[in-house]
Amino acid sequence: MKHIHGQRAARPAGRPVGIVGASGYVGRELVRLLDGHPALTVASRMSSRAGVAPEPPESELEAPLAPLDVEGFSRLQGVFLCTPHGAAAPLARAALAAGCKVVDLSADFRLKDLQRYEQVYGQAHPAPELCAEAVYGLTEHAREALDAARLVANPGCYPTSVLLALKPLLEAGAIDARAHIVADCKSGLSGAGKTPSAKTHFGAVHEDFQAYGVGDHRHAPEIHQEAGTERVVFVPHLLPVFRGILSTIYVTPSAGLAASDLRAILATRYEGERFVRVLERSMPKLSDVQLSNRSLIGLADAWGQVVIVSVLDNLVKGAAGQAIQNMNRMLGIDEGAGLS
Amino acid sequence: MKHIHGQRAARPAGRPVGIVGASGYVGRELVRLLDGHPALTVASRMSSRAGVAPEPPESELEAPLAPLDVEGFSRLQGVFLCTPHGAAAPLARAALAAGCKVVDLSADFRLKDLQRYEQVYGQAHPAPELCAEAVYGLTEHAREALDAARLVANPGCYPTSVLLALKPLLEAGAIDARAHIVADCKSGLSGAGKTPSAKTHFGAVHEDFQAYGVGDHRHAPEIHQEAGTERVVFVPHLLPVFRGILSTIYVTPSAGLAASDLRAILATRYEGERFVRVLERSMPKLSDVQLSNRSLIGLADAWGQVVIVSVLDNLVKGAAGQAIQNMNRMLGIDEGAGLS
Amino acid sequence: MKHIHGQRAARPAGRPVGIVGASGYVGRELVRLLDGHPALTVASRMSSRAGVAPEPPESELEAPLAPLDVEGFSRLQGVFLCTPHGAAAPLARAALAAGCKVVDLSADFRLKDLQRYEQVYGQAHPAPELCAEAVYGLTEHAREALDAARLVANPGCYPTSVLLALKPLLEAGAIDARAHIVADCKSGLSGAGKTPSAKTHFGAVHEDFQAYGVGDHRHAPEIHQEAGTERVVFVPHLLPVFRGILSTIYVTPSAGLAASDLRAILATRYEGERFVRVLERSMPKLSDVQLSNRSLIGLADAWGQVVIVSVLDNLVKGAAGQAIQNMNRMLGIDEGAGLS
Amino acid sequence: MKHIHGQRAARPAGRPVGIVGASGYVGRELVRLLDGHPALTVASRMSSRAGVAPEPPESELEAPLAPLDVEGFSRLQGVFLCTPHGAAAPLARAALAAGCKVVDLSADFRLKDLQRYEQVYGQAHPAPELCAEAVYGLTEHAREALDAARLVANPGCYPTSVLLALKPLLEAGAIDARAHIVADCKSGLSGAGKTPSAKTHFGAVHEDFQAYGVGDHRHAPEIHQEAGTERVVFVPHLLPVFRGILSTIYVTPSAGLAASDLRAILATRYEGERFVRVLERSMPKLSDVQLSNRSLIGLADAWGQVVIVSVLDNLVKGAAGQAIQNMNRMLGIDEGAGLS
Repeated sequence: MKHIHGQRAARPAGRPVGIVGASGYVGRELVRLLDGHPALTVASRMSSRAGVAPEPPESELEAPLAPLDVEGFSRLQGVFLCTPHGAAAPLARAALAAGCKVVDLSADFRLKDLQRYEQVYGQAHPAPELCAEAVYGLTEHAREALDAARLVANPGCYPTSVLLALKPLLEAGAIDARAHIVADCKSGLSGAGKTPSAKTHFGAVHEDFQAYGVGDHRHAPEIHQEAGTERVVFVPHLLPVFRGILSTIYVTPSAGLAASDLRAILATRYEGERFVRVLERSMPKLSDVQLSNRSLIGLADAWGQVVIVSVLDNLVKGAAGQAIQNMNRMLGIDEGAGLS
Repeated sequence: MKHIHGQRAARPAGRPVGIVGASGYVGRELVRLLDGHPALTVASRMSSRAGVAPEPPESELEAPLAPLDVEGFSRLQGVFLCTPHGAAAPLARAALAAGCKVVDLSADFRLKDLQRYEQVYGQAHPAPELCAEAVYGLTEHAREALDAARLVANPGCYPTSVLLALKPLLEAGAIDARAHIVADCKSGLSGAGKTPSAKTHFGAVHEDFQAYGVGDHRHAPEIHQEAGTERVVFVPHLLPVFRGILSTIYVTPSAGLAASDLRAILATRYEGERFVRVLERSMPKLSDVQLSNRSLIGLADAWGQVVIVSVLDNLVKGAAGQAIQNMNRMLGIDEGAGLS
Repeated sequence: MKHIHGQRAARPAGRPVGIVGASGYVGRELVRLLDGHPALTVASRMSSRAGVAPEPPESELEAPLAPLDVEGFSRLQGVFLCTPHGAAAPLARAALAAGCKVVDLSADFRLKDLQRYEQVYGQAHPAPELCAEAVYGLTEHAREALDAARLVANPGCYPTSVLLALKPLLEAGAIDARAHIVADCKSGLSGAGKTPSAKTHFGAVHEDFQAYGVGDHRHAPEIHQEAGTERVVFVPHLLPVFRGILSTIYVTPSAGLAASDLRAILATRYEGERFVRVLERSMPKLSDVQLSNRSLIGLADAWGQVVIVSVLDNLVKGAAGQAIQNMNRMLGIDEGAGLS
Repeated sequence: MKHIHGQRAARPAGRPVGIVGASGYVGRELVRLLDGHPALTVASRMSSRAGVAPEPPESELEAPLAPLDVEGFSRLQGVFLCTPHGAAAPLARAALAAGCKVVDLSADFRLKDLQRYEQVYGQAHPAPELCAEAVYGLTEHAREALDAARLVANPGCYPTSVLLALKPLLEAGAIDARAHIVADCKSGLSGAGKTPSAKTHFGAVHEDFQAYGVGDHRHAPEIHQEAGTERVVFVPHLLPVFRGILSTIYVTPSAGLAASDLRAILATRYEGERFVRVLERSMPKLSDVQLSNRSLIGLADAWGQVVIVSVLDNLVKGAAGQAIQNMNRMLGIDEGAGLS
């Protein structure tokens, strides 16, 4: 399922939020999820382009998109930015000035090191003064900071999938610090975005499979920053499916530890979590999480290493769903609202 | 997306309903939809097999299925039957005796002519005494009867898709009665059910496409009965997708009429409907309806005929969703509850 | 399978032919098939763009494409034109002037009525003086003309699939001339070409299905011209597969005739044919013909009509394969060479 | 494309070979490839079941399968065994006794250690006396032995894909012997065979992805035996495609070495090979090898490790194609015959 269009009964308006870049896959996913949110209402679905005329909808089933309206930010309590990197940072500045809470789903505020940003994204950072205050919004690992935040850098889809599995293990010292960690990640095509290209053509994806960005994908520095080590070897692959990421992570456990020990660490860390679950005796698959905000983690021993499989829906927990978790926290709403 | 598993907050229990055959595609879809129903609660997910031990779940994410428990029907207000034809009718009898409202999603009560049933299904009808009272539950065309019903024959997925488009046109005399009506229908694989077979093997479906049951599919007599004519030539095809039916229907309009006239008839008939919508200037596609209870209809002129495209999700409006509409009506609940 | 790259042993050079537009799906299919042709050698894989530099290949596994070289046509015996319509006709003129046999796989020479061409393709015909001599290359129905031809209009993929089934029946008077003929056709995505667009994006095709061009597809006038009647109602649909067309054709047989009679007519007409086969007791499916030059036809009775299912691979019998049949005939080579 | 059916002109009969288990995916692939073999002719397509009546074909386009005919082995020069493990070994004994060369595509003769076989396959070896002479047929690494062999154990699809990349590097000492080697492998569904099951159902594969057999897949001991180390951590995954394996292999290079060094080792080792190619500046993808006997290998540096991507078609180079290479060598035919 790609799009859901509803003919909903009117409900009382919640607190107004806006989406910039509402026609892309992530923007649409936000619309879909917020449509059922009990306390937030999408007051403005905006294009990422300014202009005077609304952008025509894709089909007669949809309403047109409003042009980008920075003036109107002052009527909103929260803004979700789903624009390309580089374009998001100045909009974040404007939204903060208008008093909004901001979740930036681009990569603009994920890297703390401005030189690294410039190197990876090929341009000087467009709003360096905001980088220090931006909170890296891996929700389950940043709650205290999120509650006080004005600006959230929503994590990338691959990093979310890898870090939810690795962070508690690294923090517990359960992984041999001298050995490499392999993160072999496979994503559905929606992660590549909606812009037509030779790479996203049906004929290039269907009945095919490939690795890409080997050694230089932009999510690698993000993973390294948050994992605190550059020994994570991250290789993404493109699956002929629409939704979902499955990451197979290979770690050498610290001396004497096995999969059951690492599972116990994760299970304890995520006990009571609504959106992260550690499996006891099986490995998760994509269909276990598609269309939901859940992340599932399974582990097994394999010839001296521990294999960890981490799955999530790249458009939900890997993007729009986690963004709503983060906006909920910033606005003082129940974190899971709109996500069940 | 095939399955959705939720970790929901507890909500106050609604009126108790049961599902027999809860592990198949339709049974699971009922569980998924009823999980969000404000007034009904699934009190019992039953196997279609009696026994003493629960049926082990497919994965550790799911609860086991209870064995079929006919005794327990008396604790339920409604029962959904998702069993093979033949098996459903005796269960319907038992559930009615226990005071339940019954929606039968098998074919057991769809055909009014018992001889036709025997001919099509190769066995004598297992509960002939109930056939007369069973209401054919094409919801938008049967509301009065549904409100008074105890037993509903939930329409087949193909018939629903064809009849929603054809019935108002036939009733209005807008179709040339001497000409054939072609219903060229294409369904996702979930319509073939969950039982593994050579036909449902990935290798037989993926990157393939075929017609089947040409001239003798069991949904043809159902369409003929409800359309009131045997001039509907129905040919189903198997699409390499999981969800959805798209029916392309070719009619010769009555003298002087064009697509715009037929569209007006349908638009008037379905004005204000929550789940049926007639498009004004485009044709619907599968992704417009997947995972929703909506049916969309588009029309166009083509060399003397009118081409009607009707789409729905075979597991929702073509099965579980319409079943919930029907159960809602029988229980005096808002018809759309649980379906938005 | 989309592309096949071979590392072949050198073979003695055959008669030299060129391909203009060799990087598209059809051009690549010609390269694939001619790679095994015993008597023809692809001497020049040309871009459809003139220039001085070769076009870089898609991958390091491929050789670059030569720029369009009209001067070089004189070194070739045959030219295959795989360019957009409008661009092909002037190239055909040049190739004929250089003494080549020409198979045009665009639509430029398919319609005999120049006004119709202008109306359908939105421009005056670019080489009207050649239209009369161009042979419509439905091979099995045009052999005598092909043997004497210099210029062949290679039929469209949908028309090939429909006409192979219909022409013998219409010629035999086996179809009721007053009733409509419905041709409900479903094609794999490769028929939409390689240019990236919103329509060919994986996210718009995978797990989706739709009708398009209802009432105004450009292949309709071609079908009508060759069938000799406008009563063929042609509706194409887009399948989420890469290769293949399946056409479900609904005809009202002439009084007293049934599917078995129509099958006998077709079986007689195609007896001994290498690439067209009439099935005796089943319906063909896409996988029966993918990657081959075969066309298969099955028939069944259905409520007063006869349903005919016709399948072929749109890139082979519907394009490159039939083009080779036609070039073979023009050059006096065994018609099936390179196609077994 | 799953099946190819040809209507071929008669060709002079080659040396007679038989296929036992000719209706499965691998058996059919052998039929497809041998159909174009210049020196071998499939004299007998046998079921793996003995009996008196031929097995009905899947469609009217195919000939029936002969029952298993061990007596008839004496009329053959070579036998391909495509049966389940356990069933193959006794047939190999019989075929050798009849004077045939034998390629066993099951796992029966792959493991040299009989206790390991018993442990992995849960039964005593059915023909232990033949294990010593069976040649592990990774063709490019076993030519001398193959030329003298009577019996070949055709390698598993995963092992072929992993070993072609690893063996030259291990032999050259280019890989750090203390570090783990990760082989994260992804296979199309045809590797799971044709038997319908919950796992091979379209609904369980399409739009899904999962790891399986983590820590205990039967191909692991085979990889370990041939790689000469148990430090290879092998995890297979199931892709929603029909054909192809892509293995992403992570190695820690020996001190001072980088991807370019490892590439040079592989390029030298495979120089002049027809079916193995090392890419210079890109990574291979599934569609580069589907339907061909080619194996492609690409390499890149990544944070201290070297990432190697190895692709092949599991039904061709991973099964039937390599089997033909091996049979060709045993019969003294050009190794690549029938495979170009």
